[in-house]
Amino acid sequence: MTDRVVLAYSGGLDTSVAIGWIADATGAEVIAVAVDVGQGGEDLEVIRQRALDCGAVEAYVADARDEFAEEYCMPALQANGLYQDKYPLVSGLSRPVIVKHLVAAAREFGATTVSHGCTGKGNDQVRFEVGITSIAPDLKCIAPVRDLALTRDKAIEYAGRHQLPIETTKSNPFSIDQNVWGRAIETGFLEDIWNAPTKDVYNYTDDPAFPPVPDEVIITFKRGIPVAIDGEAVTPLQAIEQLNKRAGAHGIGRIDIVEDRLVGIKSREVYEAPGAIALIEAHRELENVTLEREQARFKRGVEQKWGELVYDGMWSSPLKRSLDVFIQDTQEHVNGDVRMVLHGGRATVTGRRSDTGLYDFNLATYDEGDAFDQSAARGFIEIYGLAAKQAAAREARLKG
Amino acid sequence: MTDRVVLAYSGGLDTSVAIGWIADATGAEVIAVAVDVGQGGEDLEVIRQRALDCGAVEAYVADARDEFAEEYCMPALQANGLYQDKYPLVSGLSRPVIVKHLVAAAREFGATTVSHGCTGKGNDQVRFEVGITSIAPDLKCIAPVRDLALTRDKAIEYAGRHQLPIETTKSNPFSIDQNVWGRAIETGFLEDIWNAPTKDVYNYTDDPAFPPVPDEVIITFKRGIPVAIDGEAVTPLQAIEQLNKRAGAHGIGRIDIVEDRLVGIKSREVYEAPGAIALIEAHRELENVTLEREQARFKRGVEQKWGELVYDGMWSSPLKRSLDVFIQDTQEHVNGDVRMVLHGGRATVTGRRSDTGLYDFNLATYDEGDAFDQSAARGFIEIYGLAAKQAAAREARLKG
Amino acid sequence: MTDRVVLAYSGGLDTSVAIGWIADATGAEVIAVAVDVGQGGEDLEVIRQRALDCGAVEAYVADARDEFAEEYCMPALQANGLYQDKYPLVSGLSRPVIVKHLVAAAREFGATTVSHGCTGKGNDQVRFEVGITSIAPDLKCIAPVRDLALTRDKAIEYAGRHQLPIETTKSNPFSIDQNVWGRAIETGFLEDIWNAPTKDVYNYTDDPAFPPVPDEVIITFKRGIPVAIDGEAVTPLQAIEQLNKRAGAHGIGRIDIVEDRLVGIKSREVYEAPGAIALIEAHRELENVTLEREQARFKRGVEQKWGELVYDGMWSSPLKRSLDVFIQDTQEHVNGDVRMVLHGGRATVTGRRSDTGLYDFNLATYDEGDAFDQSAARGFIEIYGLAAKQAAAREARLKG
Amino acid sequence: MTDRVVLAYSGGLDTSVAIGWIADATGAEVIAVAVDVGQGGEDLEVIRQRALDCGAVEAYVADARDEFAEEYCMPALQANGLYQDKYPLVSGLSRPVIVKHLVAAAREFGATTVSHGCTGKGNDQVRFEVGITSIAPDLKCIAPVRDLALTRDKAIEYAGRHQLPIETTKSNPFSIDQNVWGRAIETGFLEDIWNAPTKDVYNYTDDPAFPPVPDEVIITFKRGIPVAIDGEAVTPLQAIEQLNKRAGAHGIGRIDIVEDRLVGIKSREVYEAPGAIALIEAHRELENVTLEREQARFKRGVEQKWGELVYDGMWSSPLKRSLDVFIQDTQEHVNGDVRMVLHGGRATVTGRRSDTGLYDFNLATYDEGDAFDQSAARGFIEIYGLAAKQAAAREARLKG
Repeated sequence: MTDRVVLAYSGGLDTSVAIGWIADATGAEVIAVAVDVGQGGEDLEVIRQRALDCGAVEAYVADARDEFAEEYCMPALQANGLYQDKYPLVSGLSRPVIVKHLVAAAREFGATTVSHGCTGKGNDQVRFEVGITSIAPDLKCIAPVRDLALTRDKAIEYAGRHQLPIETTKSNPFSIDQNVWGRAIETGFLEDIWNAPTKDVYNYTDDPAFPPVPDEVIITFKRGIPVAIDGEAVTPLQAIEQLNKRAGAHGIGRIDIVEDRLVGIKSREVYEAPGAIALIEAHRELENVTLEREQARFKRGVEQKWGELVYDGMWSSPLKRSLDVFIQDTQEHVNGDVRMVLHGGRATVTGRRSDTGLYDFNLATYDEGDAFDQSAARGFIEIYGLAAKQAAAREARLKG
Repeated sequence: MTDRVVLAYSGGLDTSVAIGWIADATGAEVIAVAVDVGQGGEDLEVIRQRALDCGAVEAYVADARDEFAEEYCMPALQANGLYQDKYPLVSGLSRPVIVKHLVAAAREFGATTVSHGCTGKGNDQVRFEVGITSIAPDLKCIAPVRDLALTRDKAIEYAGRHQLPIETTKSNPFSIDQNVWGRAIETGFLEDIWNAPTKDVYNYTDDPAFPPVPDEVIITFKRGIPVAIDGEAVTPLQAIEQLNKRAGAHGIGRIDIVEDRLVGIKSREVYEAPGAIALIEAHRELENVTLEREQARFKRGVEQKWGELVYDGMWSSPLKRSLDVFIQDTQEHVNGDVRMVLHGGRATVTGRRSDTGLYDFNLATYDEGDAFDQSAARGFIEIYGLAAKQAAAREARLKG
Repeated sequence: MTDRVVLAYSGGLDTSVAIGWIADATGAEVIAVAVDVGQGGEDLEVIRQRALDCGAVEAYVADARDEFAEEYCMPALQANGLYQDKYPLVSGLSRPVIVKHLVAAAREFGATTVSHGCTGKGNDQVRFEVGITSIAPDLKCIAPVRDLALTRDKAIEYAGRHQLPIETTKSNPFSIDQNVWGRAIETGFLEDIWNAPTKDVYNYTDDPAFPPVPDEVIITFKRGIPVAIDGEAVTPLQAIEQLNKRAGAHGIGRIDIVEDRLVGIKSREVYEAPGAIALIEAHRELENVTLEREQARFKRGVEQKWGELVYDGMWSSPLKRSLDVFIQDTQEHVNGDVRMVLHGGRATVTGRRSDTGLYDFNLATYDEGDAFDQSAARGFIEIYGLAAKQAAAREARLKG
Repeated sequence: MTDRVVLAYSGGLDTSVAIGWIADATGAEVIAVAVDVGQGGEDLEVIRQRALDCGAVEAYVADARDEFAEEYCMPALQANGLYQDKYPLVSGLSRPVIVKHLVAAAREFGATTVSHGCTGKGNDQVRFEVGITSIAPDLKCIAPVRDLALTRDKAIEYAGRHQLPIETTKSNPFSIDQNVWGRAIETGFLEDIWNAPTKDVYNYTDDPAFPPVPDEVIITFKRGIPVAIDGEAVTPLQAIEQLNKRAGAHGIGRIDIVEDRLVGIKSREVYEAPGAIALIEAHRELENVTLEREQARFKRGVEQKWGELVYDGMWSSPLKRSLDVFIQDTQEHVNGDVRMVLHGGRATVTGRRSDTGLYDFNLATYDEGDAFDQSAARGFIEIYGLAAKQAAAREARLKG
């Protein structure tokens, strides 16, 4: 039986050419797999047909938008997942769901190898390949750009020669990846890190310098997941989409950083993630109200590790799964409403309320009649400070 | 010899009354100590005279603004010190420098006890008292409000009866603490955490909704410390003051959170810290360019602990000092320029350049002729993902 | 209705006197609660009768040995719970199970207050009282020794005067706490930290210097829990008891450290925990075989925090419970046999085997025909070392 | 000019053959570098001559024993460096000092490439190559076994054919690496992890089951470094050597674990490190006496990371150096004497004394007249437990 290769297919030039290129180089049949993670653009059916027209023996398409929102974006929200405290892991989150469907297609169509369009110097090649072997250790991986010398110029030439039904015009000056959780832009003049991004870089967000009138929004969470906006029930996907629109109109969620890639180099990245950033801001403040202090403090370290693992392609690793159960446990009481004002690049929390919160007005108030026993403080301070006091007494003793 | 008590003196009603109140209750002589940490307000000489007029036997005043900026705010900047990822530790930083001067005054004037005006339910009582015993374990502490029943009403009555030269009008609805690093506002209607802050809460910042034209600023850092702004040399104090003004005009650095106090309760806090927030934003991005990845990742955990220790009154503790040397070591190459645009509540980094950076255009670029050896990636991915792959093979084996 | 106080009752002099002492001081009725956590000594029924004879209105006794082993010792084993890397948390583990029964008794008999026999300078007062309020925040606590001036001399006098059915001879020179997980000895001449422990200090262990012949044991684990010893099924309690005997005969598990108490002082503690130490040694090695590397590395930090929380009286805190779910998740594959030789103070693992392990002979072997692709190493090393290499290149550049 | 390669030379068959093998394969001149890190065996001068006889154009030999003890083993002691809580990093520590001399030789003799005898599946290839590029990013690396197909059989054939002055008898069944800090044994029948080590595996230690009479030793530390043994001044090297002998006679420091290699596989390793283990045991206990609690707690996490970095070949990385300054700072007061009894596999601390300690008899004692204010405890407990109590109240409220 002929060997079969499953290819992560975007519908664009590179992966359209890769269908034939892989077949030519390896003699294998190619199955194209396209996954909708909310990146917009063409209809899945159009993409499916193009794959077949380009020579794929099968084409597998999946609308994974709800799945992506529920099983990938929501855990990231509960983890307040921000790599380097800034980047909401846009591509790092979508790769695992795409991988899941690549493996499903490989099983369905009897493929032994998985292929993707990444180069050899980015994070995504690692996320794809480690992702694959983390759930399907028997599958092999091949990357035409990296392993089969499929350059851009060769792709254009190949598409023309084989009359593939795909445009071969000059590509975008930027390398772009997008899904419902956000949009990533890199390369081009941004590689000079002293250059500021220009307006044409952005697509999910309007200019925050010229915002419409302030937009007040109330987000209702249950176990750390948004379940209603302004009182109307929403699915996770709807929550992200609605906030992409409303926060995007105010230019919220633009990010511009120098980032530490998994492969050991620093790169300059620009992102826009209006919904993700607004949701994380709200979620964090609701955690401030509902998590016990020590739980919250330890969770920060867990969040950092979680973000690094996801960034580093370890979505399906044993540690990542153990961190997930920790995070899930912390979300038990993260219920309630957060009121935010979206305006001019800012998502500002202005109020929070929770039936499961730990804020206690009667303990906190400086008004008369509070419940806090101030006389306990002297004893607390004496014992709380005892170890540091002993260390100070040592210093005094040694210094004479 | 008569016992002597050193009192942290603000010049306001409570501590003015406390001078006599302590003397009456304990029979001790009171030395008033006023420290200028950039809180603004009255002249130190006026405060000194008022203390004497209120019965202090000595008055010690210190202009600690440069000292505070250099030895307290700058280490906080190098640590990107943000409690709960938000609060730049405004009061947590000023207490230790005040404590240092209280102890100096106690030594100079032969006092055995230190006193402060804090209540028994906040963080500052702990910071004062643990701070004192962490550097002067032989000194005792007393808090008139907490330990000698000095309520507001009694203070007003006392001031009137003794004709103290101090106003006794109705106090501010808020409890406020301010210094050059920022301003903290609490109590009043803010204790209902669903209430939004009103405009009158703010003083260091203008409304970000109505900003002036964008203000581009270039901050030059050396070892993580700002040394020039727009090419002109500045001291740390000048850097903070100038950015307080420029970032404050754009409403940058407003913070509104529910916070975990050291004494085990949650409280609602509003802050404004325009200079601090702008500087930390710039510093973080310069670290992105100059710190090696693993150093940067580990430093985040150190930063969190550093912030918690400072918040929790452990400025002079052995651990805090060991963290300081770690942080200092990481700052060796944090040199260079960061360009920011200040506008409408946002301090946005738009460019960065460093002679000591690790960003390497030739490695990062996707252009032709890059220095990165893509063929290494296959081997890297294979070994990097091996442990996770083995775990996946186990799952496959066990699930049959 | 008369107020009722539940008292943690040991059957000894102090708590026997406390029954009447509390009643006299507070006017409340006292309910005695005795919990068997494997400490040995008198029969529960004897203790129950003595409590009644000493004036308790009710006596609640519970054989909690299996419960203690299963719900407290086993989680500690899975966490490799060793405070300061040495102390298996003997008393820190038993306090929560006693607390649970104190609260159960308080509910059953309508008590509003809980009492214990601890002094005011140890860890156990905190573990009792924070333990109580962590599961029953409405209950009050009182400690006769600390709060009602019940000294040893007064207790002897009181017992004699009231002819209580309890011996009042000179107490042990040491303060001792013991249960099935181990035994703690402190005070007396051990307070001079230069003094070595004498032989009479020990009770659970024989002198390791004169051991019997080596004892080989095979412990079978399932999900990190011992389920068989030498092929015979055991309960957790049986596993601990059997290993206490067998490892105790070889003097295994003697510990002598200066310890950081929760209340800020250092104290000298001697422990013996033969079963606990042997089990932890075996469990750790089985984890070496079965946990994925990154999971194992992160778990170490979780284990440390877990041990500190349990030591610090936070058994029922939200963070402790979230750490528990993390740890549980890691134990999924901790199955298999560990062979140990017990001899002369040493519990030495000599073999391990697991159907769910990650050790792969074919990858590990240096024999020919191994499955490891050595050619991948070059690529791995190049990218793995790239960040450090870039940092070195910077140093070279700057040093010129 | 002819290219030159610096080769890490042991004097054994493989690296003796590698001299000519590299020259044949690359056309380069080979400089042999032999570094004495206390591994014992042949005289450096003999090794030097053999290298020249085997065709090296230059031979560089260095007695690095004191350097290794002082600059590599002592930092490991201060870090209590134990990978997986067990392995004292024997090979991980020696590679960096060898690397340092390889680079020195490369600079002295104008070489562009460094070579070593490691295979492609162990840790040491990474430690050598990342170690090289971490201090000399311009140097290239080559490994004849991995990159030039130099198998054992080919080596024997080559040595015979060229009449190299080296024995070619059947090699040891084990792969061994040793230096003054310890000895590592792997491969052979140990690759079956159910097999126990046999007696012939060990060389640094005698059988702990048949020990001589107990040996009491007093180790004096200054800043965490041993400076005297039984009152006689020692250098670090002397301290390790003397304790290797004395602790080795009692079979102390035998280790047998399944280990997580850097390259993603688990391997079975046996070690013996009598001096290292005895010193770490003593050092840890002296830290228990001299480090402040929070400093000690945080240091554990630093120690773990330090050990992982050294194991993983990151000796010269920026993070490792920042951790070093943290650790150095903690050692300021780690002064004093530790008394140990060495006997039958156990190094048992029986006493400790320090002029710079934090143990305070007057605070710790349960005797009358202690300095601890027990009345403070109630207040401490109330506030210390407040957050957990609030969480419990929430549970009670929600569960009705």
